[in-house]
Amino acid sequence: MTEPAICRSIAALRDTLKPARMADERIAMVPTMGALHEGHLSLVRRARQEADRVVVSIFVNPTQFAPTEDFDAYPRTEERDVELLRTLGVEAVFAPSVGEMYPAGFATGVSVGGPSVGLESDFRPHFFNGVAVVVTKLLLAALPDVAVFGEKDYQQLCVVRRMALDLNLPTRIVGAETVREADGLAMSSRNVYLSPDERRTAALIQTVLTEAATAIGDGGDAGAILAAGRERLAAAGFRVDYLELRDADTLAAVTAGTASRRLLVAAWLGRTRLIDNIAV
Amino acid sequence: MTEPAICRSIAALRDTLKPARMADERIAMVPTMGALHEGHLSLVRRARQEADRVVVSIFVNPTQFAPTEDFDAYPRTEERDVELLRTLGVEAVFAPSVGEMYPAGFATGVSVGGPSVGLESDFRPHFFNGVAVVVTKLLLAALPDVAVFGEKDYQQLCVVRRMALDLNLPTRIVGAETVREADGLAMSSRNVYLSPDERRTAALIQTVLTEAATAIGDGGDAGAILAAGRERLAAAGFRVDYLELRDADTLAAVTAGTASRRLLVAAWLGRTRLIDNIAV
Repeated sequence: MTEPAICRSIAALRDTLKPARMADERIAMVPTMGALHEGHLSLVRRARQEADRVVVSIFVNPTQFAPTEDFDAYPRTEERDVELLRTLGVEAVFAPSVGEMYPAGFATGVSVGGPSVGLESDFRPHFFNGVAVVVTKLLLAALPDVAVFGEKDYQQLCVVRRMALDLNLPTRIVGAETVREADGLAMSSRNVYLSPDERRTAALIQTVLTEAATAIGDGGDAGAILAAGRERLAAAGFRVDYLELRDADTLAAVTAGTASRRLLVAAWLGRTRLIDNIAV
Repeated sequence: MTEPAICRSIAALRDTLKPARMADERIAMVPTMGALHEGHLSLVRRARQEADRVVVSIFVNPTQFAPTEDFDAYPRTEERDVELLRTLGVEAVFAPSVGEMYPAGFATGVSVGGPSVGLESDFRPHFFNGVAVVVTKLLLAALPDVAVFGEKDYQQLCVVRRMALDLNLPTRIVGAETVREADGLAMSSRNVYLSPDERRTAALIQTVLTEAATAIGDGGDAGAILAAGRERLAAAGFRVDYLELRDADTLAAVTAGTASRRLLVAAWLGRTRLIDNIAV
């Protein structure tokens, strides 16, 4: 059990990581918004496999929430989060204030085209600009060799990969498999919003994804399969934002030249928005 | 005399700098577009004062030129540039191709508000987005402790400072004083475009700047002084884009609370655009 250093400032984080860096140890980072669950912990374990030292950031980033979204309601459980990380041998927890990340006069934006087009962007047009700037800032604060992102936010993973390559970020981006509840629901900090009834219904998302992916993989007509999937979700009470098949690397529309495909879904249950995805 | 390593790729640059970084030596970078003159060399000397190792980048960045501008005509003199840098003890020259910097699928933009508003942006609206992305890429390729930029491009210096702060770039931005010809003309790679007649006229820019700065500093009416300055330049054959007084730190409009002021000018002589600035 390591006692993680709790760093509130970029300067403190850099000081904490400096000895490891000078010893040429490998550093891995797991950016999170806190409210940690087993999904996050699996990312931390993956980070430990990739590096000698692990830093986890906990920062609920206001710039990736629209005014209508759940920034204020987003669960904040820092004490418990740090307790969980203590058991995993984390070197540092970077938990800055909003003012530390966005000081007075802040004026810089990062935008990523390519994989950010469509899907989430059609429903959360501000989202990836917010993600791009905060991920850039977090990675440049810690300068990790590796950063681990969950495949649950698959489009985000693709956007971060593209951005890291484009900006020459000195960090390799690793995607880690989604961790699921016993009934298949992807773990998410937002699952706490679900009522007991909604929670039971929620598992249908993964059922629909799995069955559609199998049917498409078996050569079925993707258009018809996706339309049926959307209907099945709607019949169960979901409001579907999208259920779409895309190129797994670029997230562009699937063409004859597409090497691998990914099926992605976003749907509301009551006031909770759930996303998930699966390889085809 | 050090033989500078000529690095064509980001990977080669990182390999070249790795031993210095692991020895905890300080690295300074001077980003340039080549066609080096005494102004650049003074930046390199300043970089040597700031660090143990100096890396100079030579890259004519297409994304900061508009289609109507002089990207193709911009002077390229790499062999001579490297010869000059050899005498200054430069560790590495980073001279990537356009394809190395902007590979297929490149999709990321960096935009800086604040100091980029107005002045150059009114006449070159694409310019600072191009600068922001390339400077981010160059600094992240080399990860210098310090980067030296000339005050001749004063607005660019302010934009880069803002961006470095906002993105948590691990690099301190240093501004270095403008180097001038005997008659006061600020050194610039674009001065080679001037005809002999234009070259004689060009020095008037600094005369007007100096006299206006003195008159404003003495408490004169800035509006009237600037209008007279614009007229004097126009009478000598310049087409003035702007001659403006701004807050020296934020480049915002001057108010009662402004701590220090900067006078900035851009004007055309024939087909050559000249810029300059001075503290008030």
